Amino acid sequence: MAKPRIYMHDVSPRDGFQNESIFIETVDKIAFINALSQCGFAKIEATSFTSPKAIPALRDAEDVMHEIVRAPGVEYTVLIPNVRGAERALACGIDEANLVMSVSETHNRANLRMTREQSLAQLGQVIEVLQTRSSVSKRVAVNVSLSTGFGCPMEGEIAESEILRLVDNFARQGVKRISLCDTTGMAFPSQVRKLCRKAKANYPEMTFTLHFHNTRGLAQSNVLAAIDAGIDRFDAALGGIGGCPYAPGASGNACTEEVVHMLELEGFDTGVDLTKLMAVSAMLPNLVQHDVPSQILKAGHRLTAHPAPAYVQEIGQAQRVVA
Amino acid sequence: MAKPRIYMHDVSPRDGFQNESIFIETVDKIAFINALSQCGFAKIEATSFTSPKAIPALRDAEDVMHEIVRAPGVEYTVLIPNVRGAERALACGIDEANLVMSVSETHNRANLRMTREQSLAQLGQVIEVLQTRSSVSKRVAVNVSLSTGFGCPMEGEIAESEILRLVDNFARQGVKRISLCDTTGMAFPSQVRKLCRKAKANYPEMTFTLHFHNTRGLAQSNVLAAIDAGIDRFDAALGGIGGCPYAPGASGNACTEEVVHMLELEGFDTGVDLTKLMAVSAMLPNLVQHDVPSQILKAGHRLTAHPAPAYVQEIGQAQRVVA
Repeated sequence: MAKPRIYMHDVSPRDGFQNESIFIETVDKIAFINALSQCGFAKIEATSFTSPKAIPALRDAEDVMHEIVRAPGVEYTVLIPNVRGAERALACGIDEANLVMSVSETHNRANLRMTREQSLAQLGQVIEVLQTRSSVSKRVAVNVSLSTGFGCPMEGEIAESEILRLVDNFARQGVKRISLCDTTGMAFPSQVRKLCRKAKANYPEMTFTLHFHNTRGLAQSNVLAAIDAGIDRFDAALGGIGGCPYAPGASGNACTEEVVHMLELEGFDTGVDLTKLMAVSAMLPNLVQHDVPSQILKAGHRLTAHPAPAYVQEIGQAQRVVA
Repeated sequence: MAKPRIYMHDVSPRDGFQNESIFIETVDKIAFINALSQCGFAKIEATSFTSPKAIPALRDAEDVMHEIVRAPGVEYTVLIPNVRGAERALACGIDEANLVMSVSETHNRANLRMTREQSLAQLGQVIEVLQTRSSVSKRVAVNVSLSTGFGCPMEGEIAESEILRLVDNFARQGVKRISLCDTTGMAFPSQVRKLCRKAKANYPEMTFTLHFHNTRGLAQSNVLAAIDAGIDRFDAALGGIGGCPYAPGASGNACTEEVVHMLELEGFDTGVDLTKLMAVSAMLPNLVQHDVPSQILKAGHRLTAHPAPAYVQEIGQAQRVVA
């Protein structure tokens, strides 16, 4: 029997690197994305076409997109905040545009410095630009990432109805891909299962991706809960990099190699080659100049063989028959 | 409807502190255990009656057991390797004796420097001593912890039949409590669910505790899988301290506050006061002289309120009606 397929997206070059205090050299970003491209991901979030002033860490978006070697079967997505960003990204031949706004009004204002109403208007324009251009040249898919979908660090609980209202809004604009994002690690399994079931039931044609952060140690459990509810696409960041500004020192995104390791053990086909992936993850501490949260990078696969101490063979020679 | 009850055991004073390179002062251990005693645990593993030469970090076992203030409703358990340890522990008025051996022959030799056959013989003597003494004075419960039940870092996979054979052995000696231990963080959810179901079905009178390590980021998911299979008792260590010698720098035991935080969100009654617990966890970095893995210690409860930036109120004043 074929194993059920789970599609993995690595978002470390965008959601990870944008959070780093140092600028990672363009040539290093390109080598990193090229290595990621050989691992079997369905999608890689390569960079962000935001203003270089807003996110200087990703000011080399054009160079990255022009110079990476794209692997067949991998979608290259980029974050796009506005029409200017969309135009820059289209000039680079992206596969997907990832648009973002928050479900929480307060978080939208804090993060994007706009009301949700202003975001809806602005993203509406971006979607129109993307849809118009797509029709004449290469088809560009549109994904909308809804931040703080499982809780807001400032407002607290977020009503399911608020999330579904936004899904509905974008569905009516022809958007076929939505990411439900747990931006600051507030999601928990039973909440995830409930929301995912409802979203899938109400929007059966929509492709949903789940985007978890491991801020409170629940990313892995949330992935399994989402799968229970029929979700088959996940964002994660290699090494578990990225972060949440409201929990300094805490873990960042769901860690790609931890998710892949778990899903393989649970009998899913992720398409990702864990051995290759580990070699790429091993590049990270040097690239970002600090230790990364990945447990698998420290401990290896569960079946990593360790040699027994020499004295093990000498114990109980006279009593080898075990009761 | 009453929430389902889950019984939490904190093992940080034994499984955590024994792994520390520094000696934690006896007075500090006592204050720590006294604080833990006020948090609502069903059981606290307070220390180990091993040879002071083998584990110098816990050489003050008698002083700790004599001087802690025991809270009503909390069982105080201690690790006991042999008859000498049992006699020392009985003199301190313990509630439970925790005996340990490995399911893996190689791990038993490496860790205990005995064959499994020798361990079975030795633990048989300890059980007899405990059962005899219990009958004349205070009743002392016997728990047997089976290490490497979900995999051995040297042998690899461990057959379910090997674990069940040992459970059977101890059940026939009148043992009513067994801990299934994932000593080096090799367990994964579907494996846990399967083994726990079988163990519960075969030994319906046995009280099983599950003991996970978070070495590969799976402790939380494994707890939920065990609950699926009807398990209601878990070991965990405050701060996630403790460790696995085969994964230097990786996480240690399942983190008590992470497990409690998750189980509360999932609708279980753990009996543990998370607010009090967090205050005790905050003592740890100073006690052990290093950062601890706990995510909750860094990020707080999911509903920890963060103030919004001042500019949030000034945004979009003319457009307050949200679409």
